[in-house]
Amino acid sequence: MYNEDTLNLNVINEDVKIIDLAVEMSNYDDEKIKQTCNNLNDEQLAIVLEQCDEKVIREIVKVLDNKRILNIFSYMAKDDIVDILGIIDIGNAKQLINLMKEGDQKEITELLGYKDDTAGGIMTTEYITIYNTLTVVETLKKIKEIAPKTELIDTIFIMNKRKQLVGTVKLRDILIADENEKIAQITNGNFIYVDPETDQEEVALLASKYDLNVIPVLNKRKVMLGIITIEDIVDVMVEEQTEDVLQMGGVDKEEKLDSTVWQSVKMRFPWLFINLITAFLAAMTVKAFESTIAKVVALSSIMSIVTGMGGNAGTQTVSIIIRNIAMGKIKLKDTWKLLLKEFLLGLINGAGIGLITGVVVYFIYGNFYLGLIIFLAMIGNLIFAGVTGLLIPLLLHKLHFDPALSSSIFLTTATDVLGFFFFLSLAKLFLPLLV
Amino acid sequence: MYNEDTLNLNVINEDVKIIDLAVEMSNYDDEKIKQTCNNLNDEQLAIVLEQCDEKVIREIVKVLDNKRILNIFSYMAKDDIVDILGIIDIGNAKQLINLMKEGDQKEITELLGYKDDTAGGIMTTEYITIYNTLTVVETLKKIKEIAPKTELIDTIFIMNKRKQLVGTVKLRDILIADENEKIAQITNGNFIYVDPETDQEEVALLASKYDLNVIPVLNKRKVMLGIITIEDIVDVMVEEQTEDVLQMGGVDKEEKLDSTVWQSVKMRFPWLFINLITAFLAAMTVKAFESTIAKVVALSSIMSIVTGMGGNAGTQTVSIIIRNIAMGKIKLKDTWKLLLKEFLLGLINGAGIGLITGVVVYFIYGNFYLGLIIFLAMIGNLIFAGVTGLLIPLLLHKLHFDPALSSSIFLTTATDVLGFFFFLSLAKLFLPLLV
Repeated sequence: MYNEDTLNLNVINEDVKIIDLAVEMSNYDDEKIKQTCNNLNDEQLAIVLEQCDEKVIREIVKVLDNKRILNIFSYMAKDDIVDILGIIDIGNAKQLINLMKEGDQKEITELLGYKDDTAGGIMTTEYITIYNTLTVVETLKKIKEIAPKTELIDTIFIMNKRKQLVGTVKLRDILIADENEKIAQITNGNFIYVDPETDQEEVALLASKYDLNVIPVLNKRKVMLGIITIEDIVDVMVEEQTEDVLQMGGVDKEEKLDSTVWQSVKMRFPWLFINLITAFLAAMTVKAFESTIAKVVALSSIMSIVTGMGGNAGTQTVSIIIRNIAMGKIKLKDTWKLLLKEFLLGLINGAGIGLITGVVVYFIYGNFYLGLIIFLAMIGNLIFAGVTGLLIPLLLHKLHFDPALSSSIFLTTATDVLGFFFFLSLAKLFLPLLV
Repeated sequence: MYNEDTLNLNVINEDVKIIDLAVEMSNYDDEKIKQTCNNLNDEQLAIVLEQCDEKVIREIVKVLDNKRILNIFSYMAKDDIVDILGIIDIGNAKQLINLMKEGDQKEITELLGYKDDTAGGIMTTEYITIYNTLTVVETLKKIKEIAPKTELIDTIFIMNKRKQLVGTVKLRDILIADENEKIAQITNGNFIYVDPETDQEEVALLASKYDLNVIPVLNKRKVMLGIITIEDIVDVMVEEQTEDVLQMGGVDKEEKLDSTVWQSVKMRFPWLFINLITAFLAAMTVKAFESTIAKVVALSSIMSIVTGMGGNAGTQTVSIIIRNIAMGKIKLKDTWKLLLKEFLLGLINGAGIGLITGVVVYFIYGNFYLGLIIFLAMIGNLIFAGVTGLLIPLLLHKLHFDPALSSSIFLTTATDVLGFFFFLSLAKLFLPLLV
């Protein structure tokens, strides 16, 4: 981890300065953004548009005329252009699309049709396809023609007469092959592809598991629609990681460091409100035992130790389960094995933590039975925490909810309510021995 | 997210089967691993060794003789070999290194010298360097010679006579350049590099921020030591993401789904024990007010609403702060601005949540002042939660601790202790009005 104060960034790069400028621009007012645009050329502005935040994009598009924007677009990849069109005002986006060349128009409209977080939404349409009937020397000639106009050329995609993808060839293999060989002879027919509807997280998983640096997107007839490059996948991973960390903490994935106070209130309050309802559930459980607490007021001090530890132990299980779900490592058939493991873990950790707690409570309050009931309640709640910590994310995942988002709220509700219930029921049962 | 039950994996690939086999092998016993090794050729075993887990690696190295292992190594990248040597028994690793060719020995020993999680630890030494005095046609000839023996050739690194890196050339640019041009003329002198000691997380951040697909690692004299490819960076990102999710949940980053019960106990218990200490701190705070609670037992039911909501609100702040620290987006000079924002957020959310709580409590218990004190305590604790939720991770980061690991424990201790204290102090103050 680093921040700008400590980072020793070794920069020998003009582009880098532009990227840093793009980040910095989110602090600029409208006037300063306008000035900056006037000082940059179209190629530099293309980099800025790819890197700056949504507010700045909207401002830049507002201050520039359509002709200049189209010129800037000519330096950008199609998928990045689509991203920008999705951010700005719809009327303005349509105007810009209508001004584009017909081929570009069709491509952009198609790309706009896919959801943001699917393979279709993140793919780009700039790549090289070659018919499998060409020879190596013909292919090289074609690559030399296309190369200056496209981004990725290290992998060439080979199609048959029906335009179906039949394999890939690396540029390096073309380079070292015999000039008169047919390209079909050096084509690698083994490849992994995805459908345009595939979730971006699944695409990232495939890329990381199988070390892919480009994944073709094919339609049902196996015709290529686009490619997803590893650079896009890195962006997806950063985005998904941010989502996971924020959602686990009960924060909307859209909240930024520079969201206004009011935006943050609107995003954080609903989550707090849901938590409040669950807090009342726990409070009402305690309320049911008020007559017991009135007789042994020491219960009120130590009861939250049982619920707190249940929450902590359950969160440990939830974390490891949601991470393994995210990495596609959990098989439903293993549920029983995992359930047994969490049961045993709850039993052992519960006995250990319960023993320490019981002994300390005994020494503070001088009552053996108070120590005993907290020992028993701790074991019960930690077993319950482990089992629910496993089952809640599995169930949410099965029901197609994101377990990172909602597991913790269900878990702590369960461990709070049951923790209070275990402990205070035992106290009620042992009441004559406690007073 | 997906698991194997739901994933629609479009596989047309031999390697994929081997990778899946490697994953599956962690469930095999020793005898079955031995059999599997006998059924695979050296190239397939190289893929298995790159993908399987540590236990399987140790078993495979045990059942094969050194000559076969060296042969398998010839299909593997140097950084992957180093990883394996780091896992197996040191004596065996030294034997294997001694049997290697002299050049390989030197490289491997150097790589072994860098820490696992630094640029030096994850870099590979397989890449192509060319002197800047060569012409395009000479370069092409050299690339054709080296290409079959090395992995990454899409970027060629250009050095001067003193072997210092002066720039890079893309294979595509060499391909479309004039044959007799000097390579220096098409060299791109703008590049970002890292030192071998740079933290892997920082490398991943650079790569994602500046869309790099290969980063050279240079020593102090600007001589190349190795490269980090984007595939390595994707692996780093997956690893760091797992670490963050697990550590935020209080789980050791080494815990796996198939860790034994005993391993899991050893990794989870210490964290629970630390939490227990903090739970006692909160309990002792309540104990100090037992005489107040004895007079108004309703306090025991509703006091945990204040602490619970403080923990939730503080966790929201912690999540957004640690994520922005991890992405290098927090500047210390912004601390005051963020502090003001969290103060206001705590005030507004606290007033909202406090009002709802106060009204509900008033209706349940029929006491206006009980509602009033929970309203006031909620505002106080949510402001406190926001401010500490910001300051704790910032401070931990400043002190070079990982804020993802330890922020939550300090935060909930603070919000529990202060939450109980705020609420029960107010109750003590208003006591005559509550009974």
